[in-house]
Amino acid sequence: MYRTNTCGELRIADAGKEVTLAGWVQRVRKMGGMTFLDLRDRYGITQIVFNNDTDAALCEQANHLGREFVVQVTGNVAERTAKNPNLPTGDVEIIATSLKVLNASEVPPFTIEDESDGGDDLRMKYRYLDLRRNPVRRNLELRHCMTMEVRRYLDSKGFLEIETPMLVGSTPEGARDFVVPSRMNPGCFYALPQSPQTLKQLLMVSGMDRYFQIVKCFRDEDLRADRQPEFTQIDCEMSFVEQEDVISLFEGMAKHLFKELRGVELTEPFVRMPWSEAMKYYGSDKPDLRFGMKFVELMDIMKGSGFSVFDDAAYIGGICAKGAASYTRKQLDQLTDFVKRPQIGAKGMVYARVEADGSVKSSVDKFYSQETLQKMKEAFGAEPGDLILILSGDDAMKTRKQLCELRLEMGNRLGLRDKNKFACLWVVDFPMFEWSDEEQRLMAMHHPFTHPKDEDIPMLDTDPAAVRADAYDMVVNGVEVGGGSIRIHDSELQAKMFEILGFTPEKAQEQFGFLMNAFKFGAPPHGGLAYGLDRWVSLFAGLDSIRDCIAFPKNNSGRDVMLEAPAPLDQKQLDELQLELAPAEEKKA
Amino acid sequence: MYRTNTCGELRIADAGKEVTLAGWVQRVRKMGGMTFLDLRDRYGITQIVFNNDTDAALCEQANHLGREFVVQVTGNVAERTAKNPNLPTGDVEIIATSLKVLNASEVPPFTIEDESDGGDDLRMKYRYLDLRRNPVRRNLELRHCMTMEVRRYLDSKGFLEIETPMLVGSTPEGARDFVVPSRMNPGCFYALPQSPQTLKQLLMVSGMDRYFQIVKCFRDEDLRADRQPEFTQIDCEMSFVEQEDVISLFEGMAKHLFKELRGVELTEPFVRMPWSEAMKYYGSDKPDLRFGMKFVELMDIMKGSGFSVFDDAAYIGGICAKGAASYTRKQLDQLTDFVKRPQIGAKGMVYARVEADGSVKSSVDKFYSQETLQKMKEAFGAEPGDLILILSGDDAMKTRKQLCELRLEMGNRLGLRDKNKFACLWVVDFPMFEWSDEEQRLMAMHHPFTHPKDEDIPMLDTDPAAVRADAYDMVVNGVEVGGGSIRIHDSELQAKMFEILGFTPEKAQEQFGFLMNAFKFGAPPHGGLAYGLDRWVSLFAGLDSIRDCIAFPKNNSGRDVMLEAPAPLDQKQLDELQLELAPAEEKKA
Repeated sequence: MYRTNTCGELRIADAGKEVTLAGWVQRVRKMGGMTFLDLRDRYGITQIVFNNDTDAALCEQANHLGREFVVQVTGNVAERTAKNPNLPTGDVEIIATSLKVLNASEVPPFTIEDESDGGDDLRMKYRYLDLRRNPVRRNLELRHCMTMEVRRYLDSKGFLEIETPMLVGSTPEGARDFVVPSRMNPGCFYALPQSPQTLKQLLMVSGMDRYFQIVKCFRDEDLRADRQPEFTQIDCEMSFVEQEDVISLFEGMAKHLFKELRGVELTEPFVRMPWSEAMKYYGSDKPDLRFGMKFVELMDIMKGSGFSVFDDAAYIGGICAKGAASYTRKQLDQLTDFVKRPQIGAKGMVYARVEADGSVKSSVDKFYSQETLQKMKEAFGAEPGDLILILSGDDAMKTRKQLCELRLEMGNRLGLRDKNKFACLWVVDFPMFEWSDEEQRLMAMHHPFTHPKDEDIPMLDTDPAAVRADAYDMVVNGVEVGGGSIRIHDSELQAKMFEILGFTPEKAQEQFGFLMNAFKFGAPPHGGLAYGLDRWVSLFAGLDSIRDCIAFPKNNSGRDVMLEAPAPLDQKQLDELQLELAPAEEKKA
Repeated sequence: MYRTNTCGELRIADAGKEVTLAGWVQRVRKMGGMTFLDLRDRYGITQIVFNNDTDAALCEQANHLGREFVVQVTGNVAERTAKNPNLPTGDVEIIATSLKVLNASEVPPFTIEDESDGGDDLRMKYRYLDLRRNPVRRNLELRHCMTMEVRRYLDSKGFLEIETPMLVGSTPEGARDFVVPSRMNPGCFYALPQSPQTLKQLLMVSGMDRYFQIVKCFRDEDLRADRQPEFTQIDCEMSFVEQEDVISLFEGMAKHLFKELRGVELTEPFVRMPWSEAMKYYGSDKPDLRFGMKFVELMDIMKGSGFSVFDDAAYIGGICAKGAASYTRKQLDQLTDFVKRPQIGAKGMVYARVEADGSVKSSVDKFYSQETLQKMKEAFGAEPGDLILILSGDDAMKTRKQLCELRLEMGNRLGLRDKNKFACLWVVDFPMFEWSDEEQRLMAMHHPFTHPKDEDIPMLDTDPAAVRADAYDMVVNGVEVGGGSIRIHDSELQAKMFEILGFTPEKAQEQFGFLMNAFKFGAPPHGGLAYGLDRWVSLFAGLDSIRDCIAFPKNNSGRDVMLEAPAPLDQKQLDELQLELAPAEEKKA
């Protein structure tokens, strides 16, 4: 045993004890005839004192310690004269009697402090040093506590955690699979699961009744800002349930987590918002309800006054930013530039200020009478001092999404998106399908196993695009933290669904035959949900990205720059797998 | 909500209540004017009664239910006249008032009973039906309970569960990796981890202090009887510890699991047996100590009497089977055939019976005097009625391993390997290296990160094969359920180890540079252990194979016959990965 105590646990009551601590050198300071060493481990920091008068040799040894050296110190706990109220151990110090260097350290490439001087790339390359920093370590501690709480909660509700395989079959429907060549079955490949969706449904067919798993999932997608090729899901499924049962159980779990991990008591039921309403009033299927600024549609009021941009528009709508009428021309130009960025793609922005006297001053005054502008003001319920921002376009859904970005930007600018405030809701009644321009066919909005609403089933034949699903997403602060659905448990309905999605019966059988066959042997009604663990942790940790709640994340090229993976294989390995590289440029030549 | 209660919870106190149950039809029996339905779910079986006199139509509906139909039944709880003491719900039945078929079922391909008529292949293809059987379901429930207990225990000891990546770099040292081609980095591959060994060591460098993870690991090996290409480890690592600290903490965990999950109180400290002793007395590094039959070496006694097989042997040793002198010639021939099987490879077996009068009658009487045979008898401490079995060979280690198989076989035959008895021990002081005939070099017996015993470090230069490691295995009933070691934390010692293992400095840097570099920035002393979860569950469940404690296992060819994975890819997928199939036979041609 290298230590009697950790660096976080000694208190004034321990004064007089002889202790041995081990940890890292945070810093060494010489003051007069004394040397002070801050010794750090996962649990805290304890001050060690070396007295030149008592033991000059030992003190000299301490003076030569470098940052991040690993040392073992024995000494006696003493009350500090100058206490440090910022440290739980700040009332005591250790008067050292011996010191042993367990391992030296080169000078680290960045400072191991809460605010580091290391850039992102450097911190990723030396991730094992970055993880020594309190803020990063605390994220992993939070992650551990969250998974413990999730398991306790679900276990108490009768859920069994059941591991599903990582080496499964490839299903090209949906996102791209990572695949794994099989040496024992040359020419054949496993796939890594994008989610255990079909396997958990098989567990319901097997009568497991209530299943969960905290499980790695894999998607080979071009990485956007906050995507990782491997991510972790809290994956759940229940039998003999309707949508209400699933929603109520997992709303309970969410409230439990908020209470246990953030000390936030959410007593009200979460808002339930139909998808169509979310799109209409927030332009998003994951609205941030920490603030208002609901969309107001202005087609009736603003059309037909000779302003051709609006007259030709399929959609005109806006938001009202309380108290922002004082925005300068420069600020308004910035907002216009913001919505015109290619990622957003609006053509322009119209604004209107409500003056102190109630009159409205807009950027399109020459086309509109004050009377019309007053009607518009009333539509927003705007008051003196408010700023109205309006977008229009020839595709209502696209324009709403642009207006959504503008709304979030205004929320940021007005400080309405407080990370310590939480607005939770369920978005429900999603459409079953969405049209894909790329594929020129209907695609499943959630996945092909989602149950249509019973009352909409007749429309599968007549108007499939209008069919709604028993699907639901949980949204917190504008982030989709989880989602699920009631599943189809009838093999005929499942076959029909594949047909609508453009599968031939043969292709459906080839890819999902195992599931449709299973449905023939007594599949119970079932449904479930998957939470994104990374998103929950980053939400609770107040992070902007999921990256810093993952111990060893990958960069935007899917690389682990610390491990230098992926990398070329030995030829011997390729030969064993009976594979050859076929670079695309060579093939073209 | 499809039900008010499960099929396992109604009791006599519920009599009179109206309830709704949902589940599977276990069986339907007509008796007089009544129809009895056994309704099953994960929680139990409840008897439902349909009375032809009261509601003929409903009763007729029940008569048409098939096995494994999914139904919903409403009715009133009543006390049974003929109680079934074998069922927790056996005091009550439900007098049905309505019945709804939620899903029909084709006739299942095998019976869903504790003892099924389905063969292994059929049960694997329809695994979702096999999982409905009580014994298989109970294994998964045990697995869930075990992981819950492991997490509770380690959390209470300050361990953090930290997820390490699944997409890592390939390290051809050791077993074969499964690899994953990277589409975003053409020509490059990830590997799936054989274990998170190096990553957990990096977590120690990062100051995480106590880490664990219940994690999937992957090895692309030719599958032996009880191997799976993916398996689950309880992976643990601790900083600032010596071997004794790790052993004591994880012995505590093992005892906790035995107590909580099997009701077995193990109060004594586990035996600690040096590897050399385990090999000498049991011919195995995982001796089954549920029974004796320690090896006795007979070189001194049996050599030089003119029996050339023994005279030429490098090893002669045997076991004494208490009370087995009555074995017939046929039984002894079976044992001889057993040791001569190619998997075991002995050339023959000598036996000796201790007669009632104390005299010894052996199969080699013509070479040995009764005096020598008596000396042999004494060496075993054999008594009248005992049977002595002796093997010899020109390679001591190989012969010991053959004798080990014979000992285990005799243990089986004599009923000494009771699945409800548990003999736990630590095998310690493993050799650091073992010679590989195939590679013609020393290989790491555990792995290249294992710390040699401090006192043996000087021998690294002079006699590396004699160096012992700070490595330890936990063995229960002849199964290695876990193992670990103190790790090297010094970059120079690690470099020396790679040198002894035949790595050039460049190759060591290329493959393990990330770890050796990390050691330069203040690596703490650390060590750990990994338990095989599958083996623990099968041990506690009394299974002969790990397969039935895994929800969806693979067969001996690494195939999932239910999912029909692995399978060929679409050409489009291969093109995106810039890969071509290169069948070995074509290459040769």
